[in-house]
Amino acid sequence: MAVAHFADRLAAAAGRVGNPVLVGLDPRAESLPPGLISGSGPEAAARGYVAFCRGVIDVVAPLVAAVKPQAAFFEQLGPAGCVALSEVIRYAASKGLLVILDGKRNDIGSTAQGYAEAYLGVGDASPWGADALTVSPYLGDDGLTPFVEVAQARGAGIFVLVKTSNPGGKRFQDIVADGRPLYRHVADYVETLAHQTAGQHGYGSVGAVVGATYPQQLAELRQVMPHTWFLIPGFGTQGGSAKDCAAAFDDRGLGAVVNNSRGIIFAHSRKEFAGRIGPSRWQEAVEAATREMIEQLRAETPAGRLGVSNS
Amino acid sequence: MAVAHFADRLAAAAGRVGNPVLVGLDPRAESLPPGLISGSGPEAAARGYVAFCRGVIDVVAPLVAAVKPQAAFFEQLGPAGCVALSEVIRYAASKGLLVILDGKRNDIGSTAQGYAEAYLGVGDASPWGADALTVSPYLGDDGLTPFVEVAQARGAGIFVLVKTSNPGGKRFQDIVADGRPLYRHVADYVETLAHQTAGQHGYGSVGAVVGATYPQQLAELRQVMPHTWFLIPGFGTQGGSAKDCAAAFDDRGLGAVVNNSRGIIFAHSRKEFAGRIGPSRWQEAVEAATREMIEQLRAETPAGRLGVSNS
Repeated sequence: MAVAHFADRLAAAAGRVGNPVLVGLDPRAESLPPGLISGSGPEAAARGYVAFCRGVIDVVAPLVAAVKPQAAFFEQLGPAGCVALSEVIRYAASKGLLVILDGKRNDIGSTAQGYAEAYLGVGDASPWGADALTVSPYLGDDGLTPFVEVAQARGAGIFVLVKTSNPGGKRFQDIVADGRPLYRHVADYVETLAHQTAGQHGYGSVGAVVGATYPQQLAELRQVMPHTWFLIPGFGTQGGSAKDCAAAFDDRGLGAVVNNSRGIIFAHSRKEFAGRIGPSRWQEAVEAATREMIEQLRAETPAGRLGVSNS
Repeated sequence: MAVAHFADRLAAAAGRVGNPVLVGLDPRAESLPPGLISGSGPEAAARGYVAFCRGVIDVVAPLVAAVKPQAAFFEQLGPAGCVALSEVIRYAASKGLLVILDGKRNDIGSTAQGYAEAYLGVGDASPWGADALTVSPYLGDDGLTPFVEVAQARGAGIFVLVKTSNPGGKRFQDIVADGRPLYRHVADYVETLAHQTAGQHGYGSVGAVVGATYPQQLAELRQVMPHTWFLIPGFGTQGGSAKDCAAAFDDRGLGAVVNNSRGIIFAHSRKEFAGRIGPSRWQEAVEAATREMIEQLRAETPAGRLGVSNS
């Protein structure tokens, strides 16, 4: 059965909920609300991660378009964590959420194809069942095209690292060659792939990761990457604001999803919420933090044009 | 219990067997010798991958220093593949082999630390139990230092992609800034980290992936990266020869491991062996291909100085 184009599905999902919020699922044993992990060892922690992520998903599924599980924190538990990751992806999909797996995978040729076939494709199309995967670009053409081909064939997407949110990203990404920083060279290639794979809304199956912490570069990249959907990390805990993300959207409010991980899933620990919402009511804190971020983005970016918010 | 420095352990292991061969474990269902996968579905394939990799390990453990499982092909089977990968790593370690996991992981800050803590460290030190992990450098400083710190603390290593073996690698790696290609900028940073973490033999916990398919760059990088152990892909199937790898070694025959995946593990399909060694005797083909590569490297590179080979 043919699945619709990834970027069109993402646009429809953002339009349905009226906002571009992406909730990052970054479980860490030491930050979970109390009582979710009973017992010791990786299997117990993995069960706790599933329970926690299901609890987050139950709250955010009616409010947002997509979630972004972070593979590292699941893999940190060993094979038991991989089983948990799979369960979390399936559960999010069953609740109608798009799933962008943050795995930053990368390799060449048939090995890249192996990763792509592993993760890309909902339902029975792939063993993991994600709608999209983050990908790292250092390996070049034959490191990216196998992901693009599998994504296109399966109605899935990839987000290629272009300008990341971290301070150290500049060491290589900002190196200037032929008058342009490296991230612009990567951006140009990603835009070519996005253009070649564009769907009905003008956006390709290939997106880009561009940090909220560099608003000027975000605006520059939006200009030169008109067919590229952005995944924006760095909101909240890392210092990026709604206003910083404004330039990432087109006039319809499309073209970007903005991720928040810790600021939402561990909202019970944030001082704004900790006073009035105790850790046992952590899901209320998740909901309050999600609604707060939705309102900020709707108020301060073109995402407000996406339609009536549920919040 | 403190584990010895990774590069010192690698030097000792190469010295013990008298060669720098690294056997890549890249199981693919369609290439396995017949009869190893019984039944259908990912669990059956995963059992077949474990049986196959154990069969390869049994043959190569007395002959070589290390194996390099390719994470992609295991992940392609879903969570069952992750369980299989874990079993393969543990089995290789139990046979005295060093395990370099080819996962090309990368992320920033505490997420990078998550990957590092997941994979790096033998025995009970980490849930996966690898001696080393390949890492992709696009995210810069704070994408690499968390891996370095965990590696140092646990007697483990990382190999950072510098100049890869694939034709498309040049798209970004060869972009010239300040008179030097990007891979040289990455090389300089990796060498700094290697120097900072150098062990008794002068090599650091941080190594570099440098392809056999670019012998000129291999020689150039050996000059500017005196503290960096190289992991060299591209031998055999991708076109790199023993002579192409010669410049990667120091005068003692140390400083590089040369990987061969398909050329060894699927040797039963190679025309040189298929005629005289049938698929049911595939382990004999693995042994013949391994001994052939050992002899080539000992004859045509300074690795011949490592000591008396077992072959």
